[in-house]
Amino acid sequence: MPSIGIVTPKTMHFAEPLPLQSGAQLRDYMLMYETYGTLNADKSNAVLVCHALNASHHVAGVYADQPNNVGWWDNMVGPGKPLDTDKFFVIGVNNPGSCFGSTGPMHTNPATGKPYGAAFPVVTVEDWVNAQARLADQLGIARFAAVMGGSLGGMQALAWSIMYPDRLGHCLVIASTPKLSTQNIAFNDVARQSILTDPDYHGGDFYEHGVVPKNGLKVARMIGHITYLSDDSMGEKFGRKLRDAEEYKFGFGVDFEIESYLRYQGDKFSSYFDANTYLLITKALDYFDPARNHGGDLAKALAGTKAEFFLASFTTDWRFSPERSREIVDALIANRRAVTYAEIDAPHGHDAFLLEDARYMNMVRAYYDRVWKGLTQGVNK
Amino acid sequence: MPSIGIVTPKTMHFAEPLPLQSGAQLRDYMLMYETYGTLNADKSNAVLVCHALNASHHVAGVYADQPNNVGWWDNMVGPGKPLDTDKFFVIGVNNPGSCFGSTGPMHTNPATGKPYGAAFPVVTVEDWVNAQARLADQLGIARFAAVMGGSLGGMQALAWSIMYPDRLGHCLVIASTPKLSTQNIAFNDVARQSILTDPDYHGGDFYEHGVVPKNGLKVARMIGHITYLSDDSMGEKFGRKLRDAEEYKFGFGVDFEIESYLRYQGDKFSSYFDANTYLLITKALDYFDPARNHGGDLAKALAGTKAEFFLASFTTDWRFSPERSREIVDALIANRRAVTYAEIDAPHGHDAFLLEDARYMNMVRAYYDRVWKGLTQGVNK
Repeated sequence: MPSIGIVTPKTMHFAEPLPLQSGAQLRDYMLMYETYGTLNADKSNAVLVCHALNASHHVAGVYADQPNNVGWWDNMVGPGKPLDTDKFFVIGVNNPGSCFGSTGPMHTNPATGKPYGAAFPVVTVEDWVNAQARLADQLGIARFAAVMGGSLGGMQALAWSIMYPDRLGHCLVIASTPKLSTQNIAFNDVARQSILTDPDYHGGDFYEHGVVPKNGLKVARMIGHITYLSDDSMGEKFGRKLRDAEEYKFGFGVDFEIESYLRYQGDKFSSYFDANTYLLITKALDYFDPARNHGGDLAKALAGTKAEFFLASFTTDWRFSPERSREIVDALIANRRAVTYAEIDAPHGHDAFLLEDARYMNMVRAYYDRVWKGLTQGVNK
Repeated sequence: MPSIGIVTPKTMHFAEPLPLQSGAQLRDYMLMYETYGTLNADKSNAVLVCHALNASHHVAGVYADQPNNVGWWDNMVGPGKPLDTDKFFVIGVNNPGSCFGSTGPMHTNPATGKPYGAAFPVVTVEDWVNAQARLADQLGIARFAAVMGGSLGGMQALAWSIMYPDRLGHCLVIASTPKLSTQNIAFNDVARQSILTDPDYHGGDFYEHGVVPKNGLKVARMIGHITYLSDDSMGEKFGRKLRDAEEYKFGFGVDFEIESYLRYQGDKFSSYFDANTYLLITKALDYFDPARNHGGDLAKALAGTKAEFFLASFTTDWRFSPERSREIVDALIANRRAVTYAEIDAPHGHDAFLLEDARYMNMVRAYYDRVWKGLTQGVNK
């Protein structure tokens, strides 16, 4: 399948402060975004794709000067892909607080003239949705044909359906959850502790010290990475294979392939990801809980939604298990919403939502075909 | 149920070096141990209890000067308990490399006159079993009525049945596994990385620097702790309850009860546990794989065993799941060994093996009744 090819990120500046859920506000910020395909005359074919922890506005295609930097959902978005850019105008936007271009903790705090560091305000899924809505306003998009995301991105799609019910026709929530479990929060907090206690974190002001809390970030990423993979897929890929050896080394270096792999992933991640961003994004994950203001009743939280829904989960995902998607499905059905739900038998754990899987891709493709028919034939618009 | 009351640890010195699996040897070492009950005239009623990661020779009872320091398996071992010290002579022994009294990395390396630190030799489950066998020799115990352990302790019991088939009548392996899974190793390595990259670790020589790698140990313990509990039991106990607050705090301090709990557990652990011991014990866990020298065939590895076996696992244990115990059961049955297997429906995850559970305790009690009948009636001896 051909990719959309060379794409160019764009920036949009927002002079008006963004009020945040915490009571703070984000002053004078900038969002990075990319678009693929063509917005039609009545601006009805726009689809917003929301990103998860370790991703950005770069959803599809490559950059002219970085031919290997392929968008994170390039198998999903492009010409002839399940989300077909020959039909839809697709937008990827980097959320504030991220480290991929939109205003984040490494940028200058207008109040101090120094990098925000840990002073960057804690942002929530709902804050991101508000920022995305302002971007849509600027692009003249009153209503999205669909808002879509996986994992943390799925939380944003779900929040769109609650916060702006009239601004999306369809809501696609993949491998997500209505709220983190206790265990999910626990893993996030261990990762945060690893960063916060790294002496190179310097209370968040490591930029000024010319260092990066690499060790803390590395351990944080190693923990995260384990939770993205299934026990089975790790076992199949790595087993107990030794790294370049026939025998145990009887030391604390690398014995097993899995150790080498995870340490490598941790090192790589810590070389490009921002520690404050990691803290911010895990907090946004922890805080997301739309039922919270409705006595814990998710059906009540979803009562005002108007979109049609597509949900998908993956059998071996133990981070956000199928059970969690079914909670959303049940709450939507309680509200008599139209819901399509796919529980995909895939071995890859949480990461499955990013991987090629014919049944999964075909389900999404079929759903967007329906969205497209609704748009062009005036049904389900 | 009354505890055995006040107990007193003992020490035994070994002048003869212990040859280790790595090819190194442990010189001039000391083992701490405790005994409960009375050894009978023909020394046939001895039971060895092997400890897991965070435990010691202090299996049951309390110390005269530490009335709150209750043995880690006091609910299992004592007068009238499932392992009844009115009948059996029970031995708990602290393994070398530990930080609870037996020779370990914080003790003086006779080769240098300084603390071993990271130079303490890497020890394996099999090395520990050899050390335990020497202790048994010194105590005049040629054959144990039973060897028993949970988790890492279960690995030692299993290793006994393989290495010294004539020296035990029964082998009780609780909540254990024939080898760690890839995911198990991965979690251990993240914990090790957390310790090894803590600047206060000083390459293992932190004793001389008057510091302790507290942060690294804390994060390591937090990770471990999550894997000891089930998702459900954490959810039931902590849910998404906030700590002393009605609202999110929008910072990186404690929001949720689970964060407070885990950080507290991590802090407490890092105040008494030794970092080098943590590294050593996780390595012993990773390396245990008796099938490895038999082309991965566990049945072959167990072909020379002569004991009768009791195994138990717990349904919500995702660290060493019931499936892993069943692998051992299957391999024993392939060898036509007598096996009793209990799969206990318990909510507490891996920790369940340490907790009170009537069905579990009754199964162990019934099994030891049979061991006792075998001893006293000359059957199954």
